[in-house]
Amino acid sequence: MLLLDVPAIQSMIHAIGLNTFFLDLLQQLETDFKHWNDFKKSPRHAIHYSHGVIELMPCSDDELYSFKFVNGHPQNTKENKLSVTAIGLLAEVKDGYPIMISEMTLLTAIRTAAVAALGAKYLARKNSTSLAMIGTGAQSEFQTMAMKSVLPIETIFIYDKDPLAMQKYSENLDMVFNKITQCTSANEAVSQADIIITATADICNACLFTSHDIKPGTHIHAMGGDSPGKTELDTELLKNSKLIVEYTEQSLVEGEIQQLDARHIYAELWEIISQKKSGRDNDTEITVFDSVGFALEDLSTLKMVYKLAHKLNIGKAINLIPDLKNPKNLYSLIR
Amino acid sequence: MLLLDVPAIQSMIHAIGLNTFFLDLLQQLETDFKHWNDFKKSPRHAIHYSHGVIELMPCSDDELYSFKFVNGHPQNTKENKLSVTAIGLLAEVKDGYPIMISEMTLLTAIRTAAVAALGAKYLARKNSTSLAMIGTGAQSEFQTMAMKSVLPIETIFIYDKDPLAMQKYSENLDMVFNKITQCTSANEAVSQADIIITATADICNACLFTSHDIKPGTHIHAMGGDSPGKTELDTELLKNSKLIVEYTEQSLVEGEIQQLDARHIYAELWEIISQKKSGRDNDTEITVFDSVGFALEDLSTLKMVYKLAHKLNIGKAINLIPDLKNPKNLYSLIR
Repeated sequence: MLLLDVPAIQSMIHAIGLNTFFLDLLQQLETDFKHWNDFKKSPRHAIHYSHGVIELMPCSDDELYSFKFVNGHPQNTKENKLSVTAIGLLAEVKDGYPIMISEMTLLTAIRTAAVAALGAKYLARKNSTSLAMIGTGAQSEFQTMAMKSVLPIETIFIYDKDPLAMQKYSENLDMVFNKITQCTSANEAVSQADIIITATADICNACLFTSHDIKPGTHIHAMGGDSPGKTELDTELLKNSKLIVEYTEQSLVEGEIQQLDARHIYAELWEIISQKKSGRDNDTEITVFDSVGFALEDLSTLKMVYKLAHKLNIGKAINLIPDLKNPKNLYSLIR
Repeated sequence: MLLLDVPAIQSMIHAIGLNTFFLDLLQQLETDFKHWNDFKKSPRHAIHYSHGVIELMPCSDDELYSFKFVNGHPQNTKENKLSVTAIGLLAEVKDGYPIMISEMTLLTAIRTAAVAALGAKYLARKNSTSLAMIGTGAQSEFQTMAMKSVLPIETIFIYDKDPLAMQKYSENLDMVFNKITQCTSANEAVSQADIIITATADICNACLFTSHDIKPGTHIHAMGGDSPGKTELDTELLKNSKLIVEYTEQSLVEGEIQQLDARHIYAELWEIISQKKSGRDNDTEITVFDSVGFALEDLSTLKMVYKLAHKLNIGKAINLIPDLKNPKNLYSLIR
């Protein structure tokens, strides 16, 4: 069994570069979304606590099975801890043997950003050059860089209630973008943008901005609303938008769409990628990708890093599965 | 984060001895079963394939969360592979951070056996001295040794359709028991026993023996029937027995009880351990513990080995969770 720890994933990204990593992952995601109906899918298993959530996200096709363990504890940052940590496992369906365990805190940020880019590729105007980033926490730079890998993003407007988080974002990306503007409100940031990403962390029904604050033709990537009672967008705005989700059954419980019902969903993203439905139809409509994160995206990511780990010879062997001459003689391990 | 690989668990068992390991685990299980209603419980998440199953088994109380990844591929042994492999994870509820990953192939065999012993402690006659083991695969020696840790077992009757499996069992335990009889049928084995353990692996509705084959007062531990369409016992036998399960919601789908309905369940085991219901009432009734394996049992096991690993200073540190000065600066990992 292969172990990919944090330094292993860091080496992997260092070896091929973040942009190539995004593009490779986008390709894997696109391939898998085109075969949407070949996967065994289910909503994630979540245990909710008063202060957070712990989830398991399994998915499988005929060859590979994966799951991700992931928590969400928004108050963790107050104690200088990550609000989201994750670990993933990949197994072979033919015999059920696990073949890899990987860190997925970093990979989750990357795959979540790649999914945002995938949505924008099909839903945003091709000439989108400005991005408003609402919430500049742990995910924000990844989201921004992934968008830049598929669209000609040049100008950035950011807003976070924590000025230090905005400062951190600006320092991380000031070599990449000519202009990063720190705004004093979400409204100020979104009013000037072609693309809006909402990535706030508080567990509440927020309303970051309304239809009146944004330009015609805006694409909104709503990623922060991802559990029951946690939404970011105005209900009227949703009603006036073309709304796309990943997996209806899960999104109805966790996404922005929990404010409405399934009738307001235009499509699942795979339907647009498979050309069963059109993406953006004109330059004035508002598109919203109500993205909550789906287990198939983790399977795609783990598949990709498994292949890459072998190609680059990265990772350690660990002995988590007994290797026995006679598999019925498990007792021989402790005689 | 702590990694307990196969050699680590082997060292742990070697250090304290299998019998003490069983008794410690029984104590942890008993404590946790007494607090049954304090746990967040759900049926396991299973993905079924034509040739096997892959499952996730999560459970939590207010302090600790655990899950087990486990597969069941009965045909694996034909290719000299384990039919069941497992990995477990333990996390802290307060911040959602995982604290341990452990091999659980060996631990699953041990915890499954400890649960069998726990059932027998409350349901079998105290003077049970003979045991029939139907199915002498990977779990069988563990089942036997766990029973011996709580009851005065002296005589063993075994049956398996694979003579080599019976031979392996006998060789493993011939220093422990004076008399191990290899029988030519399940009926022959069960007719002489105070306790019967059924642990066959085939996915089918089997009928290993009937009411007429067994002695009054027998306790049956039915552990092999553990997924839809996989049962081992005769329906009439179940109807004439005092039937105990772990967790009704899951057992109705996976256990022997799938042949009947919830009305035929006498109790969940925790109700007997908590003295809400009586266990065995006389020396003639037939008791059946229809055990399918429940996530709480894995949580108990992971809790116990976590404590023991620290006490014995066993295990390796692994770097699966990023350690950051500023948790909002995840991007600093790849700058």
